[in-house]
Amino acid sequence: MALIVHKYGGTSMGSTERIRNVAKRVAKWARAGHQMVVVPSAMSGETNRLLGLAKELAPATPGAGHYRELDMLASTGEQASSALLAIALQAEGLEAVSYAGWQVQVKTDSAYTKARIESIDDERVRADLDAGRVVVITGFQGVDEGGNITTLGRGGSDTSAVAIAAALKAHECLTFTDVDGVYTTDPRVEPDARRLKTVSFEEMLEMASLGSKVLQIRSVEFAGKYKVPLRVLSSFTPWDIDIEEEAKSGTLITFEEDENMEKAVVSGIAFNRDEAKISVLGVPDKPGIAYHILGAVADANIEVDVIIQNLSKDGRTDFSFTVHRNDYARAVDLLKDKVLPTLGAADIVGDTKICKVSIVGIGMRSHVGVASKMFRVLSEEGINIQMISTSEIKTSVVIDEKYMELAVRALHKAFDLDQPTA
Amino acid sequence: MALIVHKYGGTSMGSTERIRNVAKRVAKWARAGHQMVVVPSAMSGETNRLLGLAKELAPATPGAGHYRELDMLASTGEQASSALLAIALQAEGLEAVSYAGWQVQVKTDSAYTKARIESIDDERVRADLDAGRVVVITGFQGVDEGGNITTLGRGGSDTSAVAIAAALKAHECLTFTDVDGVYTTDPRVEPDARRLKTVSFEEMLEMASLGSKVLQIRSVEFAGKYKVPLRVLSSFTPWDIDIEEEAKSGTLITFEEDENMEKAVVSGIAFNRDEAKISVLGVPDKPGIAYHILGAVADANIEVDVIIQNLSKDGRTDFSFTVHRNDYARAVDLLKDKVLPTLGAADIVGDTKICKVSIVGIGMRSHVGVASKMFRVLSEEGINIQMISTSEIKTSVVIDEKYMELAVRALHKAFDLDQPTA
Repeated sequence: MALIVHKYGGTSMGSTERIRNVAKRVAKWARAGHQMVVVPSAMSGETNRLLGLAKELAPATPGAGHYRELDMLASTGEQASSALLAIALQAEGLEAVSYAGWQVQVKTDSAYTKARIESIDDERVRADLDAGRVVVITGFQGVDEGGNITTLGRGGSDTSAVAIAAALKAHECLTFTDVDGVYTTDPRVEPDARRLKTVSFEEMLEMASLGSKVLQIRSVEFAGKYKVPLRVLSSFTPWDIDIEEEAKSGTLITFEEDENMEKAVVSGIAFNRDEAKISVLGVPDKPGIAYHILGAVADANIEVDVIIQNLSKDGRTDFSFTVHRNDYARAVDLLKDKVLPTLGAADIVGDTKICKVSIVGIGMRSHVGVASKMFRVLSEEGINIQMISTSEIKTSVVIDEKYMELAVRALHKAFDLDQPTA
Repeated sequence: MALIVHKYGGTSMGSTERIRNVAKRVAKWARAGHQMVVVPSAMSGETNRLLGLAKELAPATPGAGHYRELDMLASTGEQASSALLAIALQAEGLEAVSYAGWQVQVKTDSAYTKARIESIDDERVRADLDAGRVVVITGFQGVDEGGNITTLGRGGSDTSAVAIAAALKAHECLTFTDVDGVYTTDPRVEPDARRLKTVSFEEMLEMASLGSKVLQIRSVEFAGKYKVPLRVLSSFTPWDIDIEEEAKSGTLITFEEDENMEKAVVSGIAFNRDEAKISVLGVPDKPGIAYHILGAVADANIEVDVIIQNLSKDGRTDFSFTVHRNDYARAVDLLKDKVLPTLGAADIVGDTKICKVSIVGIGMRSHVGVASKMFRVLSEEGINIQMISTSEIKTSVVIDEKYMELAVRALHKAFDLDQPTA
C-alpha cells in the first residue's frame, strides 16, 4: 500500500477506448490499496493539431507574447485528456478528480514553451488522496509567478510525472510507454538486445542524450536529483495482467550506487546517425584557435558535440568537430565565409556519412581497459575510428556510417550484453 | 476613445481564416484609439466534440464529480480559441494577451455546467489596457471559491462578455453574431420585418424568453442589472467597413426609459411553436385545484408556461395550461395516472397543434387598448383565441398552429411595424 504515480503518454491516451483501458489499469492499482496519482499526456496528435492552427495565424517573426499564447493554447490538450481520464475513472466506480498545473501549483519559471518546474504544492493532492480519490494531474504544464500558464516543452509530461512523484515522495513513478523498457541497444539493429531490469540514472542520462527516445532527458535528471525511483514499462500489455508481475516489469531507473558486483561494466550500446563531421585543415597552431572556430559556430546557435584537435605538425594542426546533420550546410558556409579568411587555415572539409557509437556503463568508472577493449573490437572488424570522445561513464567513437550496425553488434557481443545477468 | 468589449460567437471563430478576420476587425477598433477587450467562444463544433468524447466514457448514471470534470473539459475550447485570437492579433501588429476565466478571477458559484458569475476582478485587465494591450478573455467559464473551473452553460459567452463589460464599466458591449440585429419579427415569416435600431432590455428579455435566439437570456438580464449598453450586430460584414458605420449598426439594447415619444407602442411580434396545450375538464371548483394539478407537474420537473382557468359553471371548471412539446406526452400520462382519479375531474384533453403569438412593447405599460387591438385584428382574420396571457410589456395568445404566419403578419402590419421609425 504505497503512493504511486502513473504516467501515460499520448499514444496510450489516443482514443476513448485507450483512455478506458488506462482507467481500468489505474483502477486495478487503486483497488490493490495504493494511493494513485496519474499524469496523462494530451491525446496523440492533439498538440500538433493545436500548434498547427497557431502556425497558420502566427506572424512570420513572432514578437513579444507569442510564446505565452502558444502555452495557453498547447496546455489545453492535457487539460482535456486529464478531465476525460477522470470521467473514465468515475465510470470504473472510483472517485476521481483532475487538476490543471495551476490548480495544484506546479510552479515554473517563465520560460514559455520550455519552462522548468520550481516547486509543487502537494497539500491539495494529499487531501484528495487521504479522502480516497484518484488524482489526475495534467502533465506538460505549470504556472509562473505571474499566474501565466507555461509548458515544459515536448515530452514534458515525463518531467511533470517525476516532479509530482518527488513532491509527494511517491514510492515509485511508473512511466507507461510504447516500449517495454530500456534495452542494451536497439533491438532493430541487434536482435539479441536484452531489456535491462535496472539501469542507473547516470547511464540513463547518457542513453537519453545519445538518442534513446524512451524518456525525456530532463525527467531523468529530475529523477536523479530527487532520487525518485522511475520505472519504464509498456502500456500495451493487457490492463488486467497480474499487478505483482506488472510492478516488476519494464526497467527500473535507480539512483543508488549499485553494490551488485555481478553488474556488467557496460550496460548498453547507444548510437546516433544524426551528426555530421566538419574539419578545419591546416590551422596555425596558436592559442585561441578553438575559440576562434567554435565561437563563431556557437554565435550562430549551432550545437557542437564531439571535438578533437590533432597533434600539431610544422606549426599547423587539423581541428574537427561534429554538429547535427541539419546544421551541417550552414556551419560549413559560415566557416568558409568568416573563419577561413581570418584564421589563415588551408581548407574546410566535411562528411555527413558518419555515425557515433557509444558504450555506456557506470562500471567503466572503476574498470580500466574498457575503452581499449572497444577500440580493439572495432579494429578486429576493420572499422576505422575517426574521432573519440570519453566521459566517466561512456566512450563514444565517430565512424563511417556504413559500419554502424556491424559496430553495434560486435560491441554488444564483446561486452556480453546478449548474456542474461543475475 | 472608449473602453469597448467585443464578443464573437463560435461561428465567427470557426476557422483560422475567420479568426484572422476577427483579429482584423478588432485591430481596426484598437487603431481607432479604443481600449479593446475581446471575448470569444470556442471554435464552432469544438464544445460538442469534447462533450461527445466525455459521453463515450461517462457512466450511465454520472456520480459525484462528473460535472466538475465536464467543465474542466469543455472550458478548454474557449481557452484554445482565445489563445489563437491573441496570436492572430499579434500577427496584426498589436500587443495582445489572453486570459482564462481563473486568471482574471471571473468568480462564479460552484454549480458546474450552469454556474453564475459572482464577481470579476478588473485589476489585471486594466493594467494591460493601460499598457496598450488588447485583452482576450475566455468566454463561458470562470472559477469557483475552491479554485475549480466552472462553465456557465450553453451560450454562456454572451453572459461572460456582458459581465466583463459591467466589471470594466465599458462604454458598450458589441455582440457579433450571425444575424445583423433584433427584428420586429422573424423575417422568414414576415418579409417586411424591420431591424430595430434600439430595443429596451425588458423587451429583449421577453423576446428572448419567447424564442428569439439572438442572445442568451441571462446575458440580457445581466445587461439590465448592470446597465451595460449591449449591441447585437453582424460578424459577416466585411471587417474593413467604416468603423463609424459599424458602431451604429445592429440593434442597441438600452436600459434607460425611452423618452422618445415617437417610439412605437409595440416593438415586435414574437412567436413560439414549441408548446402544447393540456386541459383538465370538469374539475370540481374548490380551493387548491391549481396546486393539485400544477404541483404534480412541477414535481415531475415539467415547466408550465401559460395557465388559464375558465369561469366555473355548475360547480365545475376547466383548467388549461401549456408545456413544452417535448414534455407533452409525459405530462398527459402523469395527469391521467395520478391527478384524474384523486381530483374527480372528467377528462384530460390536449392539443399539440397550437402556437403562441405575442406582441411585445415597453410602451404597452402606459397605453390602454393595445391588447384589445390585438384581439380585434385576430378576430378580423377569423383566428380563434384559445388562451390569453398578459404582462406589463407583452400580451400572448395561444392559437391554432396553422394560423401562426397569418397572425404574425396581420399583427406586424396592424401595429405599423413595417413602417420605418425616426
